[in-house]
Amino acid sequence: MSSIKTVGVIGAGLIGASWTALFLAKGLRVIVTDPAPGAEAKLRDYLQEYCSAVPNATCSLDACMQNYTFVTDIDPYLETIDLIQENGPERLDIKRQLFAHLDAHTPEHIIIASSSSGLPSSQFITDCKRNPSRILIAHPFNPPHLVPLVEIVPHSATGEEYITAAREFYLSLDKDPIVVKQETPGFIANRLQAAVCAEAYSLVSRGVVSPEDLDKTITSGLGLRWALTGPIMTNTLGGGGDFGHFISHLGPALRCWLDDMQEHRFDLGSRERVDALKDIVDGWVKNVDLKKVEANRDELLAELVARKLVALEK
Amino acid sequence: MSSIKTVGVIGAGLIGASWTALFLAKGLRVIVTDPAPGAEAKLRDYLQEYCSAVPNATCSLDACMQNYTFVTDIDPYLETIDLIQENGPERLDIKRQLFAHLDAHTPEHIIIASSSSGLPSSQFITDCKRNPSRILIAHPFNPPHLVPLVEIVPHSATGEEYITAAREFYLSLDKDPIVVKQETPGFIANRLQAAVCAEAYSLVSRGVVSPEDLDKTITSGLGLRWALTGPIMTNTLGGGGDFGHFISHLGPALRCWLDDMQEHRFDLGSRERVDALKDIVDGWVKNVDLKKVEANRDELLAELVARKLVALEK
Repeated sequence: MSSIKTVGVIGAGLIGASWTALFLAKGLRVIVTDPAPGAEAKLRDYLQEYCSAVPNATCSLDACMQNYTFVTDIDPYLETIDLIQENGPERLDIKRQLFAHLDAHTPEHIIIASSSSGLPSSQFITDCKRNPSRILIAHPFNPPHLVPLVEIVPHSATGEEYITAAREFYLSLDKDPIVVKQETPGFIANRLQAAVCAEAYSLVSRGVVSPEDLDKTITSGLGLRWALTGPIMTNTLGGGGDFGHFISHLGPALRCWLDDMQEHRFDLGSRERVDALKDIVDGWVKNVDLKKVEANRDELLAELVARKLVALEK
Repeated sequence: MSSIKTVGVIGAGLIGASWTALFLAKGLRVIVTDPAPGAEAKLRDYLQEYCSAVPNATCSLDACMQNYTFVTDIDPYLETIDLIQENGPERLDIKRQLFAHLDAHTPEHIIIASSSSGLPSSQFITDCKRNPSRILIAHPFNPPHLVPLVEIVPHSATGEEYITAAREFYLSLDKDPIVVKQETPGFIANRLQAAVCAEAYSLVSRGVVSPEDLDKTITSGLGLRWALTGPIMTNTLGGGGDFGHFISHLGPALRCWLDDMQEHRFDLGSRERVDALKDIVDGWVKNVDLKKVEANRDELLAELVARKLVALEK
């Protein structure tokens, strides 16, 4: 497979624009399309902001801004593209039609990657007649130009060579791709996030802890550790280098906590519960400068990612 | 309540030594006791390593090493101590006896804080006759000299003034105390951690993802974000500043993921399942330099905590 120099980005909303910034900052040429009114101007604004924030960028902002083309019709360019990153609406009918078209009109062996978080590719390759084995999900974590995680989710007929090539491509951009071996609702990250959110909602709505303190439990404790070692490695280190030791030592406590959590599961289906939770959260958040929180987070996030890249090279 | 200058540390294992390092590095005097053979020498080694790693330390390592006293019997010192941080064994009989003794022999209004993660204080104040209202849990997150989180867990008769004073004390050491308003199994952090671990074990043991990639989902994605904004704030920002908007938009997907997770719950009670999981994890971990992972984590953790302290002062 030839090396990837030109990427086609379909859909230039928040995710598509952020991908575009990443590709440009890493020296790739990008052809972008989006049918929404005003999409071209919005993309330019996003890129002005995002490109210079990309950790370990190899291109200046000026070079980035000259290395993309916004097009209203991408069809005439499809033959010149080395990889597609699709960020269209999460609607099955639209994706089915779009992927059938892309499969028919792009070079037969280029990867067509969808950023979809909700629809597994097995559901939208149904009308692809040419080479659906090069289609897969490459789900980024928001915002893609800062956060390294990419979940690569093949469908059952995606070719191994395309999975490998996709991994290598995202790795070459300093991303951290993982491979999800079976199509699973929510893939990995959204499930782990849902697990935390469900218990967070339960604890806050039961009045065990304020939403501010709940968040602090993560940002001043668990999250700091998880930014550096994942749960399995953390368990292993906690067991003195032995996961088995950890689980035989802490397993009974874990079960007791999980059983109690199960008993107090938050009912996301209850309008009343959800509204009450929303009121508690709003009571906190209305006094917080969200713009500042977000700006602060993005600044520290970029620093942290850059710092980790340096540490890993040691 | 007078300001706290001298801390009594009971139990000088990993947690007690780490607390001692923190107290010393922040300029407090510490009286430490531990009945284990060799405890004094071990403590000295820990302190040599930990004291200089404390973020925003105000004391040099030399000053720290001169500002503590290891004693085999703490009783003669109890009258001179301004706060007790207890790190004894997690056994109810031992804690009951110890707390009755401490309550009887320390100045009546000093805080007696237990680092216990497993036993709520309501269970071990039963023999305290003098002032059990100054007893509470102050559960650190490992290692306490680096990670800011402290979970303050009062029992139902702990006095508000002691909760407030404990918060202020830990805040003065650059810790981030949270208050757990009801005694809850696992408090907050261990429950949230258990939620992630349970789903991690399920995904890895089902073969959906490798243990390495599972961890990467956290360290290169969720964890980076959670080091900076907690789940409730992340949801709020994800809803464009409105938690309600987030939950009405993403609630149905969350429910679908949670239902699927429920269906595939990992059975921690099954020896067979746990052993199979352990084999998968060992297959990864045996090829990893754990000493290096741990050293790298601790170095970056200290940097990250220090960096966040600076950012929050802006």
